[in-house]
This record gives sequence, C-alpha cells and structure tokens, in this order.
Amino acid sequence: MSNVLLTISYDGTAYSGFQIQPKAPTVQQSIEQALEIIYKQPVRINGAGRTDAGVHARGQRASFTAPFPIAINKIPYALNSLLPEDIVIIDTREVPEDFHARFNASRKTYSYTLDRALFPQVMLRLYSWHLPDALDLNLMSETAKLLKGTHDFKAFQAVGSLVEDTFRTLYRVEINNFPEKDLLVIHYEGSGFLYRMARLITGTLVQVAQKRLPGSVVREALLTGNPALIGPTAPARGLCLEWISYDGLVEEV
Amino acid sequence: MSNVLLTISYDGTAYSGFQIQPKAPTVQQSIEQALEIIYKQPVRINGAGRTDAGVHARGQRASFTAPFPIAINKIPYALNSLLPEDIVIIDTREVPEDFHARFNASRKTYSYTLDRALFPQVMLRLYSWHLPDALDLNLMSETAKLLKGTHDFKAFQAVGSLVEDTFRTLYRVEINNFPEKDLLVIHYEGSGFLYRMARLITGTLVQVAQKRLPGSVVREALLTGNPALIGPTAPARGLCLEWISYDGLVEEV
Repeated sequence: MSNVLLTISYDGTAYSGFQIQPKAPTVQQSIEQALEIIYKQPVRINGAGRTDAGVHARGQRASFTAPFPIAINKIPYALNSLLPEDIVIIDTREVPEDFHARFNASRKTYSYTLDRALFPQVMLRLYSWHLPDALDLNLMSETAKLLKGTHDFKAFQAVGSLVEDTFRTLYRVEINNFPEKDLLVIHYEGSGFLYRMARLITGTLVQVAQKRLPGSVVREALLTGNPALIGPTAPARGLCLEWISYDGLVEEV
Repeated sequence: MSNVLLTISYDGTAYSGFQIQPKAPTVQQSIEQALEIIYKQPVRINGAGRTDAGVHARGQRASFTAPFPIAINKIPYALNSLLPEDIVIIDTREVPEDFHARFNASRKTYSYTLDRALFPQVMLRLYSWHLPDALDLNLMSETAKLLKGTHDFKAFQAVGSLVEDTFRTLYRVEINNFPEKDLLVIHYEGSGFLYRMARLITGTLVQVAQKRLPGSVVREALLTGNPALIGPTAPARGLCLEWISYDGLVEEV
C-alpha cells in the first residue's frame, strides 16, 4: 500500500464544490468514481481543503492510500481518461505513509480575477468577476497591506462557520493590474483560509476601492471580529485555488 | 432607418456556428431573437463571415437596418441583457446606409491557440487544441513564411466548397510561443479566408512541426491546388475570429 498525492486542476462551474456531499456533483466524487474503476474497489481521497461551488483550482491537492501499486507516472493518464474534461490531474507523486494532504499543508495560494472591461470578456466569464466600475487601486493596495501578517480573521469568515481558532497568517496580498488586458488579479498566500475568507476579503477590498467603505474598516474588523463591518462575498467564479505547499515534505512540481 | 454595425464576441462551444440554420442553435439566431424583442419586429443581421460550429470570436461583426432609432450607446446594454452569457456585444456604431458587414470587410484576423502543457490546462480546454507533442518551431515558422502573400489557396479549403475565386492574400502568419504559459498562438491576417482555411493551414503547420509532413508540401499544395497533400483540419475549439477591419470605412474600436 502506498500513499499517493494528486495535484488536481478543475473548472468548478459545474460542481457543488470540491468536497463530497449527497445528491450534488462534486469534484471529489468524480475522482473517487474514477479511482474505483481503476482499483476495482472504493477509494477515499483526502482533499487539502474544500472549495465552494463554482470556485476553480489549478493546484488543489488530495492524497489517497492505493490498494495496490500502479506505476506512479501512469496514474494521471489513467485518471484523466476516466474523468470529465473539466477535471484534470496534473501531477502524481508518492508521499510518506503518514502524509495527509490537509493536515500537512503549510501554505495555500488563491487568485481572484476581476474583469475590468466595459463588457464581459466572454472567454473569461466563468473565471472572473465582471466589474467595469471605477476602482481606486491605490486605496485598494493600501488597504490590502493592513491584511498582511497574523491576525484574528474572525470577521472574514462566512456566518455559521464553527472553526475555533480563527487566527491565520497572510504572507502575501498582491494586487496585479493588467490594464492592457482589462484584468486585475489579486493573489492571496496564507497559512490557511477560513470559510469564504478569500472571497470576503476580495469583496471588502472592492468596496474600499469603490469608496463605498473606508479602508479603516479592515483594521476595525480585524480588531473587533465584527463581520457586519465588511463587504459582501465576492462571486465564486473569480476565485481559483492556485497552489498548496508542503514546506520540505513534498518537492514542488 | 439607420444602419448599425455590431461587434460581437462569443464562446462558440454551444453553437452550430455563427450563421443561422434550421434546427440548430446559432449565434445569429440568438442575436436576431434579442433584436426582435427590442424592436418588436423581425430584424435580420448580415454577418461579416461565418464561423464553424465550436469556433469562437472576439471581434465578429454584423450589420443590420434598425427599424427605428435607439441611442447607439444603449444598444449593447439592451442586447447583452437579453443575450445568453456566451454572446457579448462589445461595440455598436452607426455606419453609412450602403455599408455591408461582409462585402465591405477588407481584412480578417484569426488566432489559433495550442495548449502545449503535458496535461490540458483546464480553464483553456474549450479555447485551445491540447497538443503536448514535440514540435519543431523553426520548421513551423519557415513553413509559415511560404503561406504569406497572394496565392491560390484552393488546396486549403474544405471539400464541397463552391467558391470560384480561391485566391486570397495572407498579410501575416505569426507564430508566438509562450513557453512559460505552455501556449503557442498563431495569428493569421488575410484579405479573406476560404471555408476552413485557417484550420487546414494550422493542421498542416502542425504536421510539418511534428515532422510528419515535409515543409515543401505547402509550396506544392499552393502550386497544384491538391488538397490531398496537406494536413488534417485542426479542431474548431482552438480557433478564434479576432478582428475584422474596414479600411477607412469604420473607425477602429
């Protein structure tokens, strides 16, 4: 029995998120169905993290215990031939027996894409939030800086979340403007993300850039933990789980 | 009555091409249905050119005679609110009464995108041809040069085409390699394109780059008009109608 780590990219449009749930199509379900065909028995995968309905991934990770060995380089081809076109396994590697894709994750990187064209860029419509409004990008960048570092992000999680420890570290909040492409891409790199945290931060940064909220709400929300202060949840389609790192444990792809 | 020119972008995945046809969804049909709602009477549009099933556009053009005047800047918003998400009107302008989107077109530009990653880039799957094979890009570029200029492109049209004049001018065949993105994008700019010409040229260039065909077949095909010499039709999903120019007649968007 070997422990296998998959790197998974998917278009989340058609799925009710990554994590398996009854009566709704999920990415995990599709992968487990394909693994069951390959291994001729049920195989459960451990995802590195959930992504919401409609959220995409370029570098999601999941590990599973293989019932019997198959040459590691052949697994992506076998899985991709069975998976729908909107889920692609881009890497497979063997990991130590005690490795767990979620518990051993040290950093996660998300991107959020804003389409700033006057009319939606049609080929990007499923992968961006169309927002042609004027944005004050300096204000947005200044506010983004307040989020960096270790904070109690309690205000920046969806209502109903039951996580006890709401402290997280954001190593990077980087706003990249590509005016020639009418795109604005925000990268978030953190020790972990609370439920909907990346989308709530994005929604808040946008409200600040639109001057609907003062930048100071971010500091206040971090200090008070009051979710009523901050902006709405940005749409799922603009968010993409870019990468999950396992410092030292797993070689980078 | 005013003559209106639309600039249209669309994801061709769900359509049986641009041009209206019975019992199949087309881009033209969707736009005419939306116009009928706006103008409360049937409105016929003249497309600048057909695109095949599955082919995309960023800058298709079509003109129509408006039954009554509507502020030109409001038309895109009105149409986009009625159109499905995969068709977006990106510009509208008034043109002289005798203007015709097809007959007055002087140049067309297409792009063809190859996804060169080992496994398909999932967010590009509908907009590229996944081709991880080794390609000799020098050979490809040298062969592309043979296509530039005015030639009889008879060999580079789909069987069954009934066009009499098969001479066309290719002003530009440009191969852009983006190794950091695993993408290869070919731009074709020409006076016009025969039926499936851009896809037949792409298929041939790929065969040459794979060393399955000698580069000399291009010269031979141009001289003899023999379609049997050249490569297969590249898949529709990689092709995108980028732009249509009306030298002098219409201001560039």
